[in-house]
Amino acid sequence: MRIEILCTGDEILSGKTVNTNYSHMACRLQEAGLDVAWGTTVGDSRERLAAAFRLASQRADAVIVNGGLGPTVDDLSQEVAAEAAGVELVLDENWVRRIETFYSARGRVMPPNNVKQAMLPEGSEFIDNPIGTACGFAIYIGQARFFFTPGVPREIKLMLDQEIIPRLLKMSGTRAVVALKRFHSFGLGKSRVDDVLKPLEPELEQAGVKLGFQAHYPQLETKLLAKGYSQEEAAARLAPFAQAVRQYLGSYLLAEDTETLEGALLRALTAKGATLAVAECGTHGAVASRLAAHDSAGTVFARGTLGASSDSLARAVGCSVEGHAPPASRVAAIARAARTAAHTSLGLAVLMEPGDVPAEGWVHIAIAKEDDEPICRSACLLGAGEQIRAGGVELALDCVRRLSAGLSVADVIDFEKRPSTRPAAA
Amino acid sequence: MRIEILCTGDEILSGKTVNTNYSHMACRLQEAGLDVAWGTTVGDSRERLAAAFRLASQRADAVIVNGGLGPTVDDLSQEVAAEAAGVELVLDENWVRRIETFYSARGRVMPPNNVKQAMLPEGSEFIDNPIGTACGFAIYIGQARFFFTPGVPREIKLMLDQEIIPRLLKMSGTRAVVALKRFHSFGLGKSRVDDVLKPLEPELEQAGVKLGFQAHYPQLETKLLAKGYSQEEAAARLAPFAQAVRQYLGSYLLAEDTETLEGALLRALTAKGATLAVAECGTHGAVASRLAAHDSAGTVFARGTLGASSDSLARAVGCSVEGHAPPASRVAAIARAARTAAHTSLGLAVLMEPGDVPAEGWVHIAIAKEDDEPICRSACLLGAGEQIRAGGVELALDCVRRLSAGLSVADVIDFEKRPSTRPAAA
Repeated sequence: MRIEILCTGDEILSGKTVNTNYSHMACRLQEAGLDVAWGTTVGDSRERLAAAFRLASQRADAVIVNGGLGPTVDDLSQEVAAEAAGVELVLDENWVRRIETFYSARGRVMPPNNVKQAMLPEGSEFIDNPIGTACGFAIYIGQARFFFTPGVPREIKLMLDQEIIPRLLKMSGTRAVVALKRFHSFGLGKSRVDDVLKPLEPELEQAGVKLGFQAHYPQLETKLLAKGYSQEEAAARLAPFAQAVRQYLGSYLLAEDTETLEGALLRALTAKGATLAVAECGTHGAVASRLAAHDSAGTVFARGTLGASSDSLARAVGCSVEGHAPPASRVAAIARAARTAAHTSLGLAVLMEPGDVPAEGWVHIAIAKEDDEPICRSACLLGAGEQIRAGGVELALDCVRRLSAGLSVADVIDFEKRPSTRPAAA
Repeated sequence: MRIEILCTGDEILSGKTVNTNYSHMACRLQEAGLDVAWGTTVGDSRERLAAAFRLASQRADAVIVNGGLGPTVDDLSQEVAAEAAGVELVLDENWVRRIETFYSARGRVMPPNNVKQAMLPEGSEFIDNPIGTACGFAIYIGQARFFFTPGVPREIKLMLDQEIIPRLLKMSGTRAVVALKRFHSFGLGKSRVDDVLKPLEPELEQAGVKLGFQAHYPQLETKLLAKGYSQEEAAARLAPFAQAVRQYLGSYLLAEDTETLEGALLRALTAKGATLAVAECGTHGAVASRLAAHDSAGTVFARGTLGASSDSLARAVGCSVEGHAPPASRVAAIARAARTAAHTSLGLAVLMEPGDVPAEGWVHIAIAKEDDEPICRSACLLGAGEQIRAGGVELALDCVRRLSAGLSVADVIDFEKRPSTRPAAA
C-alpha cells in the first residue's frame, strides 16, 4: 500500500514551524509495518491544496492530510476536500455540541468561528478527536482514501494511534510485519562504521536485511530492518547481524532500540543504589536537564547546579578551588564539592570552555566517588559552537555510563582532536 | 519564481530525523523574498527519486535537493541527477584533493568511499562546501534548475546563504521584497486573537497585507506580511496594522520580530543592572537553561539550581522551609534563599506539581527582591504533561519580564483554569 503524508499550512511550508508532526506520523506508521512513500508540504492556498490532493489521489492508496482543520479563515482542508470529492459541506450537529461541551468544561463559551470546525464533506466518515475541537474525517478522492487530521501535535498523535493506523492496517490487508533493530552509539563517525560493516553487505542482501544509518549528532544510529510474515521470523533473520554490529560498536554502544543513553545509565546507577549530583558550566544545563527528564521520581538524580562561569559554579557548590588552577584540578574539586554538598554517592562536574581556535572547544569532566580520587576526562572537541556543546554534554553522560558499566572513560572518540597525530603545521 | 524543496533520505521520509533542514531553508528563502511553493520528501529509492525529480522539473523553476551526497551506498543524489539530466558522472579532481586535505588537517587519512563524493554529473556547476566533504552542484533537469546540497545541517545552512540564495535571487530577477512583522505573545489563544482581529480583515485585504498566525505553544506568533517594490514601501503599508495588533495584545506581547522572551527580559534586567539566581523543580531545568543560552556572558544570569523535589531544592539553596507549608510560602522562601545564596539582586523560584486530575498541573512562581516580600503567582495549567511543563516555564519567564517592565504578573492567561468560573460538577 502506497501511503502519502500531506502536511498543509503556511507555517509548515514557510518553515516557521518545524514539521515534527510529519516525523512522528512516519515513525509510528513504520512501527506498524506501514511504509510512507511520499511526503508533501503545501501552503494555505486553495489552488495548491487542490493540486496536491489531485496528485496524491493518483499516486497513493491512502493519504493522511495533516492541518487546516482549525477555526480560522486560513484553514481550508474541509472546503478543498469537499470540492475535490465533488460534494457539499454539511454541519455535523453532534460535533458542534461536543465543541460547546469542550468550552463549557473550561468555564468558557464557544467562539462563533468554531462552528466552522463541524462542517464536514457530505458522506465522509467521522473520525473522533477526544481532546480537541477539530474532528477528523475520511473520504475517497479518486481511488485514494484521504484521512483528514488536525495539526495540533497531541491531537494527531492520539488520533493516529487510535483511529488512523487501525483503519490503514485494515485497508492494507497485508500480513507483512517489520522487525527493526536499532543501535545507538557515540564516538564513531558514520563513514567509519559504514566502512567496517561493508563486508557484511553481500550477506545482508542475501538475507533480505537492510542496513541503514542515521547520524543524529552526536549520536549515530545503526539500523537493521527486515520484513517477514511474523515478527519472530523477521527478528530471527536479523539476529546474527545484530550480534556483528554489537561486536563492532563495542564500548561505544550506548543503548539498543528504544532505550536511551540516559535510560541506560540511570538503570545501571539505580541497580547500584547510587545517587548523583551534577555541577556544570557552559552546557546550558543540559546534563542535569537530560537526567531529570528521564528520572521523574528522582531516584538517582538529586540536584543540578548551573553556573554562569566556573568560578560562580565553584562558589555555588561551596568549593574553594583556585581560579587559576588547571581545568582538570578545578573540575575534580567541583565534582567532589558537588557530591559533598548534595550528600550523594556520585558527583559529576562538567566544564566547557572555548578552544584556542574557532571550531574547537574543550570539555573537562570529573566524576567524584566516596574516598577515591575523581575520575577525569578532558577532550578538545571539533565542530561548530552548538555541536561542541552537544558533544561535551554527550561525552559527560557517556563517561557516567562507562563508569557504571565498568568500562574505561578514556576511549578516544572520532569528534575529538588527537594531539599525537596533529600535523605540526596546519 | 516557483521553488520546490526536495528532501531526500530514508531517515527523513521515515520520520527518524525531524526535518529541521526544511524549515531552516524555507525560512531563509522567505526572508530573502523567495517563496517556497512545494515541499517534497522521498526516500533513498532510485525509482522514487527519479519520479520526484521529474515532477519537480515540471512544476518548479528552481529545485533545492537536500541530502543524498554522502559517501555511503544509500546516498543516490548524484547518480539519479546524472540519469535525469542524461549525462555521465565524472570525477572532480579538485574536490578529491579538498577532501584529502580535510582529513589530513584532522590527522587522518581519507577513507576510500569518500571518493564517491567527488563524482559529479558532467557539465554541472560546482557549488563549494567550505566545511564538509560533500560539495554541492547545480544542473538543469528539463526547464528547472536543480541545486544539490548536503544534508548535514551546518553545511546546508552555510551553503544556502553563501551560494544558493544569491543564485536564486539572480535567477528570479524580481524586485519584489517582503516586509514581515512578527508579534510574539503568551497567554492568549489563537482563536481569541483571530476573533478580535477579524474586523481588520477588509482593511487588510484592501491594503494587500496578509494576517497569519502560528501557534507555537506556549507562544503565539501573529504575523503581518506585505510584498512591495521596496522594503520601505511594504513596511509603510504594514505600520498602521502593526499598531493595532500591538494594542490588542497589550501586556501579553512578549517581543517583536527576531527578539525573544528571554532576550526582552535579559535586556530589561541588564539596563537595571540586575542579576538573577534561579531555583526550580519539575521543570527539567528549562528556566535556567533558556536564560543561560541567551546570556552567554553571564551578565544577568548567575546561577541555576534544579532539585529533584521541592525539599531537595530547598536544601540545595540553604532554605529551611517546612515540607508541609503551602506551596506559595514554600516557593517564596526558596526564592529568597536562592537570592541570598547567590548574592544576586533577584531570586526566581519555580515549583511545578501535578494537579488534582490528569491534564492539569500547578506552577508556583516567586520572585524575591531585596527588602520587599517576594512577588508570587500560582496557576493551574490545562493540557498534557509536556504542555503543562512548557506553560509553567513560559509563565515563570513571563513573570520576570512583566516585573522588569512594570506590568502586573497577575493577568490571567487562556491556558489556566479559572476557579471562579469552574462548574460545580464536571
